[in-house]
Amino acid sequence: MNGAEAFIGTLKACGVDVCFANPGTSEMQLVAAIDREPGMRAILGLFEGVVTGAADGYGRMADKPAVTLLHLGPGLGNGLANLHNARRAATPMINMVGDHATYHLHHDAPLTSDVISVAKPMSDWVRVSRSERDLAQAGAEAFCIAQSYPGKIATVIVPADHAWTEGSAVLEPQPLPAAPRSPDSVIDTAAEALKAGTGDKCLFLGGRALREETLVLAGRIAAATGARLVCETFPARLQRGAGRVPVEKLPYFGEQAEAFLKPFGTIVFCGTEPPVSFFAYPDKPSWLSPAGANLVRLASQREDTYAALSALAEALEAPAEPMGIQERAIIPAEPGKLSPKAIGAILSELIPEDTIVSDESATAGLAVYGLTAGAQRHDWLTLTGGAIGQGMPLAVGAAVACPHRKVIALQADGSGMYTNQALWTMAREELDVTTIVLNNGSYAILNIELSRVGVQNPGPKALSMLDLTRPEINWCQISEGMGVPAMRAATSEEFRNAMLEALGTRGPHLIEAIL
Amino acid sequence: MNGAEAFIGTLKACGVDVCFANPGTSEMQLVAAIDREPGMRAILGLFEGVVTGAADGYGRMADKPAVTLLHLGPGLGNGLANLHNARRAATPMINMVGDHATYHLHHDAPLTSDVISVAKPMSDWVRVSRSERDLAQAGAEAFCIAQSYPGKIATVIVPADHAWTEGSAVLEPQPLPAAPRSPDSVIDTAAEALKAGTGDKCLFLGGRALREETLVLAGRIAAATGARLVCETFPARLQRGAGRVPVEKLPYFGEQAEAFLKPFGTIVFCGTEPPVSFFAYPDKPSWLSPAGANLVRLASQREDTYAALSALAEALEAPAEPMGIQERAIIPAEPGKLSPKAIGAILSELIPEDTIVSDESATAGLAVYGLTAGAQRHDWLTLTGGAIGQGMPLAVGAAVACPHRKVIALQADGSGMYTNQALWTMAREELDVTTIVLNNGSYAILNIELSRVGVQNPGPKALSMLDLTRPEINWCQISEGMGVPAMRAATSEEFRNAMLEALGTRGPHLIEAIL
Repeated sequence: MNGAEAFIGTLKACGVDVCFANPGTSEMQLVAAIDREPGMRAILGLFEGVVTGAADGYGRMADKPAVTLLHLGPGLGNGLANLHNARRAATPMINMVGDHATYHLHHDAPLTSDVISVAKPMSDWVRVSRSERDLAQAGAEAFCIAQSYPGKIATVIVPADHAWTEGSAVLEPQPLPAAPRSPDSVIDTAAEALKAGTGDKCLFLGGRALREETLVLAGRIAAATGARLVCETFPARLQRGAGRVPVEKLPYFGEQAEAFLKPFGTIVFCGTEPPVSFFAYPDKPSWLSPAGANLVRLASQREDTYAALSALAEALEAPAEPMGIQERAIIPAEPGKLSPKAIGAILSELIPEDTIVSDESATAGLAVYGLTAGAQRHDWLTLTGGAIGQGMPLAVGAAVACPHRKVIALQADGSGMYTNQALWTMAREELDVTTIVLNNGSYAILNIELSRVGVQNPGPKALSMLDLTRPEINWCQISEGMGVPAMRAATSEEFRNAMLEALGTRGPHLIEAIL
Repeated sequence: MNGAEAFIGTLKACGVDVCFANPGTSEMQLVAAIDREPGMRAILGLFEGVVTGAADGYGRMADKPAVTLLHLGPGLGNGLANLHNARRAATPMINMVGDHATYHLHHDAPLTSDVISVAKPMSDWVRVSRSERDLAQAGAEAFCIAQSYPGKIATVIVPADHAWTEGSAVLEPQPLPAAPRSPDSVIDTAAEALKAGTGDKCLFLGGRALREETLVLAGRIAAATGARLVCETFPARLQRGAGRVPVEKLPYFGEQAEAFLKPFGTIVFCGTEPPVSFFAYPDKPSWLSPAGANLVRLASQREDTYAALSALAEALEAPAEPMGIQERAIIPAEPGKLSPKAIGAILSELIPEDTIVSDESATAGLAVYGLTAGAQRHDWLTLTGGAIGQGMPLAVGAAVACPHRKVIALQADGSGMYTNQALWTMAREELDVTTIVLNNGSYAILNIELSRVGVQNPGPKALSMLDLTRPEINWCQISEGMGVPAMRAATSEEFRNAMLEALGTRGPHLIEAIL
């Protein structure tokens, strides 16, 4: 068997069974190897940002890696933005990136580039195979790295001659590393802080701490200590909705976040670090936690949050029941002209149990999040790294990981354009994704940020760089051009009817919400 | 004045007057500075690959740099593929990439990444500003680097606090470096080789040697020596058509290229290096020049090709007239079902003088190139680096550089999807670009390459990864969704009528050619 077959076979033996792919000539042997491995599903993306974003969505929902197939340095470059988001989300993911045959590299053919250097900034681990036999070994190692709790980005660079040379073999999976645990002393410190602390207390949660069962532990700790439960602004995956332990979300804008945190004298962090301002602004602080507050790091993103909160609940002799459970709450929608509030209200009523929401709604969707707190239980995935163009690809991957769940992509118009090709993959794979494009005709967030960084009275040229109305983008046409049926909604009534239709029929839909 | 204003002012003083932009929050001060500089045109792209591809097209046609505006590491990442192509084309280009304020970086906010590392693989030169005053200095240096003959990719990373801090000033342009010249000994060696060589002789041209006036020199040398004029497979800009000195183009596939070069006993290279196979294939050579041939490097891509060929023509006492001049030749088109040949024939008849063709037509367009040899004189721009998604962005930039010339983007369907957002910029800027999408419903080149790398009997999963028909992409809908009027042509007659309409009306058009 050749190196490509051994590599793909090893990944399959480890449990990897989905490949998001955008191959080129140098990856044809990998394509052939995937073709021959019946347990490996291949999903084509027409742009690499779709591929890496889909692998991110898959990894967040499956808690195991998909593998991507990318073409040389430029193909990897096209995928970097969503790799950045995935790395920030600590998603398990394996990338296989083709490169020229080893003996061809020194000729500096047109597509030659320094693939390792392209890979490093957005990967946790990069490995170039050394031979056709070593390629399988690299695959086995990549799986272990990718599955390091909670997940890492492992990138394997595959020279074409290693892929096509015979004489390799499938390897057994290696033992997986256990998630590191917080030491007892840290548990004690956190318990002490929550018991004895002055001022309001906060249990600040992120990463894997935002899963349903871990949130129950947090809710029990809240019941024992009166701590408020707060989560990071951009969680990778937050399990929320009716029947779950609710958490408050830290606001996006630094001033609001600082004011939000101000009352707290004690903050215990679990699964994330103390929050900082997303951007710097003249005369505004980067660090958001109050000066003088007692900040305790119970568990980092890479330490076992369930174990840490279990131990903490035990140390605090927390009651069996969490402090609060979110009740089902349907918000009535204002009739007439459609608004983000009305969208949120209608979703609070309509989304079915275990819906997955991929939220890249930027400004237009701020209201939607708040109003869906009492929707049926669901998973909420956000833009962890701020690199826009994630929303629809993430929905693709989530739908592949969870074929029996409804997926909703809440998509701002400006960022949606970056990876609009994701619609084609939704159509090809008949994914049960409803994309809601929040069409406000602008990079609205940048209009806000322009004044926040101190630009007064911007002129027409500046404003035109934030404007998407000249020409207006017709998302229904783009969507149908890629095979996804589309509807337009300008009123609450139209939006509600469109949602009913989309949720009532399996397969992809797009609703262009005119705001 | 703040650092951003001094930076933009310095670029303007150097002669840079076009900015292709996709800004984010960290670039708002640069947006404001562009706004206040009346001599700087700002052109928004809805994806960074459009931005860098447009700057490439602009630089190839204007022979001076445009500046791009990109958002942090992920925004730059999205632009890397077309930066790779631009670097291979030796296009003059300046990138300004925002970064977090210097004091914000250590907080590792979500969008933080190693911007320098992202920039390096596809830039010739990377510079981080050190202060608000140094930012202007970085701009002046970047211009000099970008204008190093024939052009380089200069990337300046702009921390947000350097942009917003007051106390900087516009700097004078620095003296530009002269293009390096081939030494006399090399001219003599080349003259000797072309006079005395055994076997057929070839003058192999690339880079700036493919401009009209330099080709006249090459044609005179051909007249003096009987050398055949051959050009690289993927020229950055080839001036061709009726009235110009014709050159033969080296075939793409390695076997054909090797056979093409086999007769030559002497090859003199000017503006490019000895060609190598685009990819490696099992049991096929990378090096294409015949063993034992006398290979002489008259001038590299970075040496003055006009000076080198002038000196060579003089040394050879070449006649005043070139060996041949391309005659006007209109090829009759077969009526009925549309084919690449028919498209080439119709273009040979219809394209007006000084049309610019951006060719990313891949397999579907091979015939078009050959059949347009006798069209009215025009410029032909190709995919220099093999990173697909260049065609339409390149056309955007060429149209901005040359507003009074017709631009045609010959666009394969698969690669067109990568940067389809370019259509929106064509509409917004009312660019006189006609995009011809060659819709064959597949990555046809990969179907060929699959067998060339030794994959026999590919199964349905492999073939599906090269197929674009499930679902079919409706380019007319996508185009109109972004504001570019579109027509569909399935026969020669329909295509001819569509071309007449597109060429007869200023502004953007798209013709979906069904093949």
